Amino acid sequence: MNLAIEEAKKAASIGEVPIGAIVVYKGEVIAKAYNLRETTQNATTHAELLAIQEACRNIGSWRLEETTLYVTLEPCPMCAGAILQSRIPRVVYGARDSKAGCVDSLYKLLNDNRFNHMCEVTEGVLAEQCGNLLTQFFRDLRAQKKNQKRQ
Amino acid sequence: MNLAIEEAKKAASIGEVPIGAIVVYKGEVIAKAYNLRETTQNATTHAELLAIQEACRNIGSWRLEETTLYVTLEPCPMCAGAILQSRIPRVVYGARDSKAGCVDSLYKLLNDNRFNHMCEVTEGVLAEQCGNLLTQFFRDLRAQKKNQKRQ
Repeated sequence: MNLAIEEAKKAASIGEVPIGAIVVYKGEVIAKAYNLRETTQNATTHAELLAIQEACRNIGSWRLEETTLYVTLEPCPMCAGAILQSRIPRVVYGARDSKAGCVDSLYKLLNDNRFNHMCEVTEGVLAEQCGNLLTQFFRDLRAQKKNQKRQ
Repeated sequence: MNLAIEEAKKAASIGEVPIGAIVVYKGEVIAKAYNLRETTQNATTHAELLAIQEACRNIGSWRLEETTLYVTLEPCPMCAGAILQSRIPRVVYGARDSKAGCVDSLYKLLNDNRFNHMCEVTEGVLAEQCGNLLTQFFRDLRAQKKNQKRQ
């Protein structure tokens, strides 16, 4: 999760909402990514989706068996869906997302036996650190906007 | 929807599950795509996701306001999530997907007011034609496998 946090920090450093993800395959990191929505102006460039795409390229298969995805924030519906589509067997996440989280908060998409895949989920790993990155980012953003208004 | 069906047929012609999608912006088609999961070996290359990515590139924004997405099959959780993320205001789809559909069948992700976006949905447009493409594709696939076993 520390590596995912490093990715999230890279996002913050370029003004992106700090969310980072990594994919581990047989003990080896095969993909690292951070949220790039503003930079790319592409709605699908969340950290998890980018990491999954890189992992597929590196394994050479759309099936990411024997992998674990680590992500700093609870995945949204798109990313939870991508986890199901790529058959990732294990997901570890940091902070909960009460507004859009679809692993525990609003839905439990990774544990619905009507889908053709289910996932083992561990939540709350370094949750405070992961959450603080986001809180600080939005606090800085608000302060910046306030300053701009004053000028 | 006829254009989306044409896309789905292109998928079938290269052995991909026949699902097609287009994005229309102010009356103009700005993106066309079909499922490419096997060809790319990338779990995220569903028709809708590829069409959304192309539409973002063409509009130059992750916000696909004033667009309509047409897709031959009810979107899965990943694609329904991508529709929410890209703020597409209207979705028209053909056949229902009772196994993984997340617009009407298993969940109604596009009409949940807890998310920061909701979508107008029209279902059942050319549903029979869209569904038949899939039925025929899987029928052919089974026949092919049976023949291979015999040889």
